[in-house]
Amino acid sequence: MTSLKRLFMLDPGVTFLNHGSFGACPRPVFNAYQAWQRRLENQPIQFFHHDLPGLVKETHRALGAYLNASPDDLALVTNATYGVNIISRSLALKPGDEILTSDQEYGSCNSAWNFACRKTGATYIHHHMQLPALSAKDIADDFWQGVTSRTKVIFLSHITAPAALRFPIEEICRRARQNNILTLIDGAHAPGQIPLDLTAIGADFYAGNCHKWMFCPKGAGFLYSRPEVQHLVEPLVVSRAFEPEKEPAGGHPMVDYFTWTGTRDPASFLSIPAAIEFMEKYHWDEVRQQCHALLRWAISQICDMTGLEPLYPLDSDFYAQMGIAPLPPVKDLPAFRQRLYNDFHIVIPIGPWKEHLFARISVQGYNTKADIEALLKVLRQLLSEFSE
Amino acid sequence: MTSLKRLFMLDPGVTFLNHGSFGACPRPVFNAYQAWQRRLENQPIQFFHHDLPGLVKETHRALGAYLNASPDDLALVTNATYGVNIISRSLALKPGDEILTSDQEYGSCNSAWNFACRKTGATYIHHHMQLPALSAKDIADDFWQGVTSRTKVIFLSHITAPAALRFPIEEICRRARQNNILTLIDGAHAPGQIPLDLTAIGADFYAGNCHKWMFCPKGAGFLYSRPEVQHLVEPLVVSRAFEPEKEPAGGHPMVDYFTWTGTRDPASFLSIPAAIEFMEKYHWDEVRQQCHALLRWAISQICDMTGLEPLYPLDSDFYAQMGIAPLPPVKDLPAFRQRLYNDFHIVIPIGPWKEHLFARISVQGYNTKADIEALLKVLRQLLSEFSE
Repeated sequence: MTSLKRLFMLDPGVTFLNHGSFGACPRPVFNAYQAWQRRLENQPIQFFHHDLPGLVKETHRALGAYLNASPDDLALVTNATYGVNIISRSLALKPGDEILTSDQEYGSCNSAWNFACRKTGATYIHHHMQLPALSAKDIADDFWQGVTSRTKVIFLSHITAPAALRFPIEEICRRARQNNILTLIDGAHAPGQIPLDLTAIGADFYAGNCHKWMFCPKGAGFLYSRPEVQHLVEPLVVSRAFEPEKEPAGGHPMVDYFTWTGTRDPASFLSIPAAIEFMEKYHWDEVRQQCHALLRWAISQICDMTGLEPLYPLDSDFYAQMGIAPLPPVKDLPAFRQRLYNDFHIVIPIGPWKEHLFARISVQGYNTKADIEALLKVLRQLLSEFSE
Repeated sequence: MTSLKRLFMLDPGVTFLNHGSFGACPRPVFNAYQAWQRRLENQPIQFFHHDLPGLVKETHRALGAYLNASPDDLALVTNATYGVNIISRSLALKPGDEILTSDQEYGSCNSAWNFACRKTGATYIHHHMQLPALSAKDIADDFWQGVTSRTKVIFLSHITAPAALRFPIEEICRRARQNNILTLIDGAHAPGQIPLDLTAIGADFYAGNCHKWMFCPKGAGFLYSRPEVQHLVEPLVVSRAFEPEKEPAGGHPMVDYFTWTGTRDPASFLSIPAAIEFMEKYHWDEVRQQCHALLRWAISQICDMTGLEPLYPLDSDFYAQMGIAPLPPVKDLPAFRQRLYNDFHIVIPIGPWKEHLFARISVQGYNTKADIEALLKVLRQLLSEFSE
């Protein structure tokens, strides 16, 4: 994996173990990104009026093929949070309706549902998920305890932000469909980190980022909607003659009403095909497996060091390239973090969650065993230095 | 003005007379734009978590100084349409409420209000504006005829898209305030084209683009809200713990709740200070006057050629760097347009509006008298070739 590092733009003086927060864009994709921007500025009218519709269509096609979804069922959106907001504001919630979610959801998405509930009188219910997780069926059964006759929507992360835990959304979406409950999956961390087959997953709505694990530049995401529920969806930014009584001009509401939201730089969207090509060219399926193996080793080493138990079995597929390792309490967390970054140039999120301290480790193709060894060495030193 | 052309990235083989549609970004601003993107990719966490809040604050400060508004009363948004959508969805409209607008508004903004009215039972009323326009007072008096006791909101372009006509919004906002009517101004075409003093204008809400006449790269706009009405405004994309009962973390709702909408490339926003510096460095106030003089000459020449009357007195300030010239009917408009672009490489929007054909001419610092002479020569030839 050493040779892959030169493909990325990350500061070589830093040990970067936080791909999960914002991703990192490889040079070939980034160059494609900036080349689109130059092309736009060379002939703006030609670009927006003549070239862009075809380019967007090609982007939908490539993304649809990658996600196993019809291109017409995808909208290009800035990020997963944006996609979640589209759905949380579109659904005609009523007082008494319940939106069931887990206690591992991302803050901004919780805020979006809180807002929708304040507006409508619906209730947002965080189901406490049992940890450690032992099997997909256990997780699904546990979550299903939260379902009531008032559950109208299930909102779940595919891979959660705080715990990097992969939820068994296929099984949960299957049960939800049987019970006429709508499903929205927050796939912020999934596309590119795990193989994704939107048709097989069967969610009604799925919002994802392309700028995290799919290597796009920032501001590239998608919202998938199953054809049968697309009539429920309304744009956040109404533009381009959104008149839902009529057929849209291009004939595809998700493309025509959601991807177009006034003048913006579309280069992040147009970089999606280059990002997919990048992953193919460098055999990222294999790179991912190496990353997972390295991550597994990292967590097991930390658990050996601390004597703490991991949150999920390390030989499971509950995690892929991102995982969390429990840490013992430290006496001054801000100082601990500062030492880690300022003195050792290691970038990794460490914070409290559910009464414990955790390090969330991301391993991407640019990381090497030496990065993990550096982390282990520094953790050993700092945990001793800051022990309570 | 010849020397300014080399500062822009436009294809030198094209006579570009359509700055009004998407703007054009000068090289120094564009280079700053792409440099922000490289800096972000070099250290993503450092950039988003540590640097960006201060950079955004500096952007607000520079933009506020340019627009004569408090930095805290501005939100950075992708474009003016986005800003209009924030307001059209925020205001608690009720059945019977009227939103009064003109018959010269931009299609996407009309769609936004149509959507809000379908949701709430309010009515969107297009007041037919008398043309030709003779005085600011006449326009204001004319528009005011549309006001009724049910008028809750006045929505008006500062400079209209189809006619490039500058509305007397200061006078209209003054009367509206006296009558407890909220005002939202669509400033898509104003900032950078005319001097703008948001405090003096006195609108409740003002949405503007920085990527048209202010020279930013695409996707930079703002929404101004008067402090007294900010409590009415809700974000489209709810994120970053939007909980309006509480004080926002940074203490400034417009910044904290509206500028932050999940991970995106913020480089277009961060280019705003570079764009303002560009205009100062190249004395754009003087450039603008030269552009206006050249535009005035262009319209008068076309009117001489066609024998048609301009829509507004050519010695008025109803227009600045963008104006429309009426044309006689042509027998095959698509073929006419194709000849203009394919054979003569002139980029200019020509289309029917209110039973007449118009050319909308934009003159920017990269244009020269030779561009207008080329246009005049080709128009003379094609109008004869395509005369009905």
